[in-house]
Amino acid sequence: MESMQGEVIYPPLANNHISVDCVVIGFDGTQLNVLLVNRHGEEDGLAYHDMKLPGSLIYQDEDLDGAALRVLNELTGVKNIKLMQFRAYGSKNRTSDPKDVHWLERAQQARVERIVTISYLALVKIDRAIDKSLDAHKAGWVPLNDVKRLAFDHNLILTEAMHYIRDAAEVNPVMLFDLLPRKFTASQLRTMFELIYGHAIDVRNFHKKIAMMDYVVPLEERQQGVAHRAARYYKFDRKIYNKNRR
Amino acid sequence: MESMQGEVIYPPLANNHISVDCVVIGFDGTQLNVLLVNRHGEEDGLAYHDMKLPGSLIYQDEDLDGAALRVLNELTGVKNIKLMQFRAYGSKNRTSDPKDVHWLERAQQARVERIVTISYLALVKIDRAIDKSLDAHKAGWVPLNDVKRLAFDHNLILTEAMHYIRDAAEVNPVMLFDLLPRKFTASQLRTMFELIYGHAIDVRNFHKKIAMMDYVVPLEERQQGVAHRAARYYKFDRKIYNKNRR
Repeated sequence: MESMQGEVIYPPLANNHISVDCVVIGFDGTQLNVLLVNRHGEEDGLAYHDMKLPGSLIYQDEDLDGAALRVLNELTGVKNIKLMQFRAYGSKNRTSDPKDVHWLERAQQARVERIVTISYLALVKIDRAIDKSLDAHKAGWVPLNDVKRLAFDHNLILTEAMHYIRDAAEVNPVMLFDLLPRKFTASQLRTMFELIYGHAIDVRNFHKKIAMMDYVVPLEERQQGVAHRAARYYKFDRKIYNKNRR
Repeated sequence: MESMQGEVIYPPLANNHISVDCVVIGFDGTQLNVLLVNRHGEEDGLAYHDMKLPGSLIYQDEDLDGAALRVLNELTGVKNIKLMQFRAYGSKNRTSDPKDVHWLERAQQARVERIVTISYLALVKIDRAIDKSLDAHKAGWVPLNDVKRLAFDHNLILTEAMHYIRDAAEVNPVMLFDLLPRKFTASQLRTMFELIYGHAIDVRNFHKKIAMMDYVVPLEERQQGVAHRAARYYKFDRKIYNKNRR
């Protein structure tokens, strides 16, 4: 660009707020769920209730990874989980919906223009311990198939997180075992793989596959109190995994 | 935190500048190089000359991906390459060296506090076309083994970029062929793999491996004007790759 006097004029620099957003995927033995927080407000005189990923602006004095852990804990009570950064979202269209901007300005009591968000990802098993921490917050699990229109570009972030998991699991399949309880049945393991990869897996072939995964160790223990034939439990053995692969 | 009046005081929000930094890795048939730009300035009365990744602050009106392409082109002349985002760096220690802050404030004529940078990655072959575009800029290829102390946290970004390439190539090996010219010898292909993975590959086994890569197609053509026995050329066939894998 040039001014009328012929000097070069540079476009204004972006001085952005930075946020972190956390995609926490949980498996309950039957389906994959995402951890969402409720949002409510009023826009054009109409009350609305919708949902968003747990996320917020970062403070001046904290690093990205630290901010992600803090924000997740503040909004959901969840702590002590492995969050990994997976992508930055910085489109200027992220804040194109006035509803999102108004909500954020009320929540943060700050003027908000553009926000670049750094997204984080975690895989967890859903159990009583984690559900207990959610109780005191306006947060909860939503099955992936039931997720509706989320705030900002959070639907896009969620979709890309699922692609990221599939790709990352090719290099590091062990990460998927974070979705499972300490002991799990072959059927739970198969269901989890089917949901992550989005296609059915033949039961017969899957038992051969388990036998090839030396780090999936059968236990003596079986399910109790089930109507059908009690299934054997397996566990993931990290020591065997690390010894043979690293 | 609480004030003396007992109201809750939140820490100040971070209102950061955002930058993009590009890690462009080029292969010249013999070694891996990174594209760096020269930086010079004066600190404590002493002139210095060092190097940095091509990167700069983004403008208010551009997206992250667009900013990365613009900045790379402005600083190196390079265009029409595939840049992929790989990680955000936002430690508050990124701008702990006054030399870096002073240099940036002079270059940008703006007050700079904290900067979150979104890093991008590209793999290219080094040929006359790309070298020509560098000539007009203060940019050049530096062999990976000769990279010294870079500005900001650019050594860390470069190191993590190389890890990222290794991981990403496990899922998508085809990306590595962007490092090679249209036709290449088996020896060039082997050298490239050795450099990426950081260990020697047995020549005999490698010829078996090439035979298994149906998308690496031998050509009738051989090297010309070489003192030793002229090697056969190969090409990467994207059609065969896509047909058999996707």
